[in-house]
Parts: sequence; structure tokens; C-alpha cells
Amino acid sequence: MSFSIADAAHSAKRAARQVANLSAPQKNQLLADIAQALVANTHSILIANNKDVALGKENGLDEAMLDRLALNAESIQGIADAVLEIAGQEDPVGNIANIKRMPSGIQVGKMRIPLGVIAMIYESRPNVTIDAAALCLKAGNAVILRGGKESLHSNLALAKCIEMALAKQQLDPAAVVVVPDTDRAVMNELMTLNESIDLIIPRGGEGLIRFVSENSRIPVIQHFKGVCHLYVDSAADEAKALALLENGKTQRTGVCNSLETLLVHQDIAPRFLPKAAALLAQHQTLVHACENSISYFNGAQHATKEDWHAEYLAMEIAVKVVVDFDQAIAHIEEYGSGHTEVIVSQDYSKTQAFIRRVDSAVVMANASSRFSDGGQLGLGAEIGISTSKLHAYGPMGAESLTTEKFIVMGDGEVRS
Amino acid sequence: MSFSIADAAHSAKRAARQVANLSAPQKNQLLADIAQALVANTHSILIANNKDVALGKENGLDEAMLDRLALNAESIQGIADAVLEIAGQEDPVGNIANIKRMPSGIQVGKMRIPLGVIAMIYESRPNVTIDAAALCLKAGNAVILRGGKESLHSNLALAKCIEMALAKQQLDPAAVVVVPDTDRAVMNELMTLNESIDLIIPRGGEGLIRFVSENSRIPVIQHFKGVCHLYVDSAADEAKALALLENGKTQRTGVCNSLETLLVHQDIAPRFLPKAAALLAQHQTLVHACENSISYFNGAQHATKEDWHAEYLAMEIAVKVVVDFDQAIAHIEEYGSGHTEVIVSQDYSKTQAFIRRVDSAVVMANASSRFSDGGQLGLGAEIGISTSKLHAYGPMGAESLTTEKFIVMGDGEVRS
Repeated sequence: MSFSIADAAHSAKRAARQVANLSAPQKNQLLADIAQALVANTHSILIANNKDVALGKENGLDEAMLDRLALNAESIQGIADAVLEIAGQEDPVGNIANIKRMPSGIQVGKMRIPLGVIAMIYESRPNVTIDAAALCLKAGNAVILRGGKESLHSNLALAKCIEMALAKQQLDPAAVVVVPDTDRAVMNELMTLNESIDLIIPRGGEGLIRFVSENSRIPVIQHFKGVCHLYVDSAADEAKALALLENGKTQRTGVCNSLETLLVHQDIAPRFLPKAAALLAQHQTLVHACENSISYFNGAQHATKEDWHAEYLAMEIAVKVVVDFDQAIAHIEEYGSGHTEVIVSQDYSKTQAFIRRVDSAVVMANASSRFSDGGQLGLGAEIGISTSKLHAYGPMGAESLTTEKFIVMGDGEVRS
Repeated sequence: MSFSIADAAHSAKRAARQVANLSAPQKNQLLADIAQALVANTHSILIANNKDVALGKENGLDEAMLDRLALNAESIQGIADAVLEIAGQEDPVGNIANIKRMPSGIQVGKMRIPLGVIAMIYESRPNVTIDAAALCLKAGNAVILRGGKESLHSNLALAKCIEMALAKQQLDPAAVVVVPDTDRAVMNELMTLNESIDLIIPRGGEGLIRFVSENSRIPVIQHFKGVCHLYVDSAADEAKALALLENGKTQRTGVCNSLETLLVHQDIAPRFLPKAAALLAQHQTLVHACENSISYFNGAQHATKEDWHAEYLAMEIAVKVVVDFDQAIAHIEEYGSGHTEVIVSQDYSKTQAFIRRVDSAVVMANASSRFSDGGQLGLGAEIGISTSKLHAYGPMGAESLTTEKFIVMGDGEVRS
């Protein structure tokens, strides 16, 4: 029998009503059952995953892709632990905020409720299947998971574990749909189902995200690239600046919250840049420098306009000397990606102004850009990082998968 | 010189940075200046408006359209007063919520910030030009206003007042763009400018909203129809139920928060429906009744499936007897538009369950659906009512035109 995404979405919408009305303990029990099923079925998950990896090798997937794809007993335990961590978080649904009495006599508040049906479109990593399902269920939503072709066997094996947990709680199996058909046509149809699906979250390359954003009739959370800036102010503590540069650029390079551009105030440049150059040389970092800083770096290349836009995701960095604070802000406005920006400064007013004026999703004073993720910012697990301002901006946890409705309690009041 | 929407949007984006950084008193002064300019220029606004009304008559606009289009000295004073009211509201921008210390030592909070550039696409009412401009400015945004062809002269005269106020405060005139070209091609181009525009809010008929939703590359706030339900429970106070029926259906019919469907529990139907019938007859209301209630109404028509979906916006109502509370909820889930629903009941548990389970934007117990607007719910002026759950759900005030960014204050912490 062939798979119909329209039918699956329609069933997910029905199931969403049931999930929305589960109590916090019921949802947490469901998540605990999923975690248990993952560990209990490690063997069959690994058999499926081996099949994907073997096919991936046949099809010439690169090492990085194969690395993201491969599971082992330890990583499955890690995925299960993450589900239990989500279960342990505060339940976002049902809280009522700000009940106020109006002049008419009615009492008005806002209650947090699930969004409904969320569709995830993602590429190779099979752990996203479980992470996303757990977060969506925690927030009271049904979820449609459309992973990549290269991880299909793994995803279906993981789906089996979710299915067992839903069955154990006698819940509608349509609450979590793992799309078994990775044909592009299915994804294209999915993006038109705005009667059943409330939100699409694409995770993957810029091409995928742009394609979904431009073609979907359903609202999309966009996560484009992270071109994160470190601005070293004239009043910076140099030791802190060096530590934040090292941590932000070199601790892990392939992630969106690593640093890509270093901006240095001209007054501190003669003292700071030699130290920065030594540090970056120590990490074999390729430097793309502006004309006022290139003399400090051995083997640096001249920075072009492309460098100010670049997300290197590698041991590479762009460096620019700025004449003042305002020029640093203007550079970030012009070239930033709305992800994360950091000022290093001991000047109280400048740190305040930076935090107020820069409108990226995460703005920091004297802290590493690498803290810009859901776990480090206190959200628990994250389902993605939004770099557009609608609905959610920055790392998104379970609460970002909910909305608020107005509730009104009256005693027969009418409007005059 | 021909108008370029791409240039205007680009300039608006530049101006948005300036507006975002205005202090609350600066924004409120700007709004006061707009209000003053409106009153001072009443004469020229009316000349322009008379031109629109005359053209409208020539072009055969219907009475209702002409009525929405026409201004007079009193209504201009009313528009100016509304601007002053918005000025008097709390400023949503810059507040910081929930600063927490993380285990790493960093402090993390969320700061409310403007969205950037908002585009309004709307039909005849010229007052939207000023209301929307005032709300967007209050929230620190630039705004692009694309009104209908039939009110173009009025809108341009109103734009002059905004221009004067911006000039008086030495602000970038591009902060408020009134689109002088109502050609469809300009609107179509506007919907592709996702680099400059952050949000589109269409206000008007369902066709317009659907067209924008399905064709825009920019996020859209949807306000589809309001099919509001009044559910009279078996434990209803009959006097309250009658008062809420009368107020909800008859106080004003052409608005989205008026009642369209009455659901009555079968246990109270024999007592309640005769009184409801007398009340509705008194207001010459055409009733579309289910087979279990049609005998109570003189001259009623048999309700069809279309009636359960209908937004009559007239002295017309659909009536259905339900066997129990669950059937009432199921009917609302099936046919509701996500706008506003009301339960009338003295039963504590049922009112609580209704408020919890119904997921429309506004859910009420024992209060009139007519309270479902920004002013009555305590938001001050509203820019629209969202019936989709993303970003905002229900009446949207100035705060709905903002978002939150994460702010991090550290002291040199790095991630290990």
C-alpha cells in the first residue's frame, strides 16, 4: 500500500488533540517508555543503522556525513538519556499568565497551549528523529518527521520504538509519523498541507532551508547560517578577549555558534593583535585580514567582501580593525546573520549599548559565543535555532513549540 | 519618477534601525505630533477623502464600502485620539525578563525588541493607515502601508501628517511608507522582499488573506473568518445565556466577534430554546436550525453543513442541539475558525474543561464573545486578530509587533 502524506497529516491532526490533553505525568511516562524502548532495541536499531552506513559507503557519502549517520550502543544510550532529560523538564503547557480584571468586570489571562502538528524536515543525523519527537510530545504536539534518504532504515527502526511506547500508553500511533517515503514529491506535498500542519522546521543545509521557506504554505522556522562576531573593544580586558577568541574559534569549528569574524577597536589593535596572531597561529588558523591588520598575521590573506559574509565552519577567521564602537555595530548590522554576537569590554556603558543595539538572536557581553545553544542558555534540549524574528528567535526549546490563547472568565457580562 | 517598492523597503529597513533605538518618550512625542498634525490638517484630509468618495460613487462602490471610506471632522478627531491612547500605553520595547544564572556562571535573560519592518496590506478604511502606523512605531518598527486603490487620496493626505511629524522629530521619513502605487504588481513584488520586510499583516476579505498567505515569501499573520460559538450547557444560568446570546448575536452583526452558531445541551433545550426563539424573533433573526431544534423556531430553515461553517455577519444564526458537552467540543473542533468560543455554565468543572480543551484564540466562560478585541482584553489598540497559532494568536497589540532576543552577561566565561 502506498504512503499518503495527506492522510498521515490528517491523522496527525486528530492525534494532536489527544496529545494536547495529556497531563504532564502522562507525557513524561510516554517519554520514559520511549527511552526504555530505545535501549531495549539497541540491537535492531544498529542492524538498521549498519544497513544505512553500508548503503552510504556504496553511494559515496563523505566521511563527515557517514560520521553523522553512524550510531553505536553508546550513542543510542545518549539519545535515550536526552529523552529522559526532556521528560525531567518543566511542562510548558497549561500555565496561565497575568490574569487581569478589566473595567467590564471580565477576567482575562493567557494560557499556554500546544501548536498542533509540527513537521521536521532534516538530513542525515538519526538522533534528530528521537530528539524532535520527544520535544514535540513534551510540548503536547503531534509530529511528522521527514528525514533524509540516507538514514531511512535507522529512522524507521527508531520509529518502531516510539510506536511501541505510544501503544503501551494506548495512544494514537499517528501522534508521531516517520515518513517512510523520502521522495521529493512527498516533501513538496507536505508543504501544501496547511489545513493539517501548523509549523515546519527544516534543519540542514542553506539550500534545503531556502527551498522550504520559499515554497511552503505553512509557516517555517528558518535557521540560516551563523556568522558570529567577537568585538574586542578599546576597553577590553585582553586576557578575557584572548580566552573568548580561542574558545569561540577553536573549541569546535563545525558548529553555527563558533566565531567567524573578529572586530578589533583601533586603539587596542597594536597591543591585542600580536597576541591574537600568536594564538591563532598556535591553532593553525587561516586568517583573512583587512588592510589595517594584515601585517600582524603571518600567511594571512587579504579579506574580501565574501569573507565578511563567510561562515567558514573551519579553522579560518576574518579580522577587521574598526575605528570605533559605532563602526563595529554597523559592520555587524551589515554582515551579521542574526545569530550570536559578543562584545569584550570592561566599559559599562558600551556593554549595555551593545546588548541593547545589536539585534541578533543572542547578544553577549564578555562570554563565549559557544554558549549560544539551548542547553547552555537554560532551555534544555533544543529543536533548532531561529535566525528569523517571527514566533521564536534564537535557540528553541519545548516552550517555543507552544503558543498562548486568551482565556476569559466572566459572570454574564455583556458589551455595551 | 516611478515608485520602487524594493527601494522603499530597503530604506524602511534602514529607518527601522533608527526607530528601534528611540526612547519611549521620543516615540510618544512622535505619536503626539502625528495626532496634532491630523487635527491641524483636517481640512486637506477631508478634501482628499471627498475625492475618494466621489470616485467611489462613480465606480459603483456599495454603500457599506462608501461608509467605511468616508471621513469627517469627528472621525479624524477620533483617529487622533486613538493615536494619543497608543502613546499613553506601556512601551513594550527593552524590557528584560527572567535573568537567570547558569551553571557556567553566565547570566541569561530575554530582552524584548522590535521586529523590524512590518507591511500592512488592507482595503478601504483609511483609519487603518494611522492606527497601523502608530502601533508599529510604538513597538519600534518601520512600516509599509499598502491600502486599497479606493482610499488612495485619503491615505496620501494622512501620510503627509505622518511625514510632518517625522520631520519635526528629525527622523528618517522612510520609517513610514505609504505606497502610492496600488497596482497589483507592486503588491506582488512586496511579498518577495524577505530581505527587507519581516512580517506582512493582510486585513480584508478572505480572498486577499489567502492570496497573500499562499504567495508571500515573508511570514504572514492570518486573520480568517470568525465563526464564534455560544455553547449553552445543561448547567447554564438561563438568564445569562439569553443575555450572552442577545449581546453576541445582535449588538453588532458585521464584526468577526459576533456569534454565528448556538449549541444547546439537549437537557436544557426544551426550557431554553423557546426563550431563545422569542429573543431571536424580536431581533428578526433568520435561524438555520438542526432537526432537533427546528420546531422551536418560526420560519427557520433546515441547517446544512454550510451553515456550520458560515460567518453570516448578519441577523442570522445556526442552531444545533448537542447530546452532551463532548459533542459541543467536537462540533467546535470540526467547524470552528479558531477565533472565539463561549460556554455558559454554572458547573465549575465544565467551565474549566471548556477553557482548557477548546483551542481557539479566545475561550470564554460566561462572557460575551463581543469582548474579543484588543481594547476589551486589555491590549489597547489592536492591529489585527490572528487565527493562526504562530507568533501571535488572537487580538494583537503593540507587544505582538515585537520579539525577544537572548542576552548574556558574562565575565570571561568559556565553554569547556
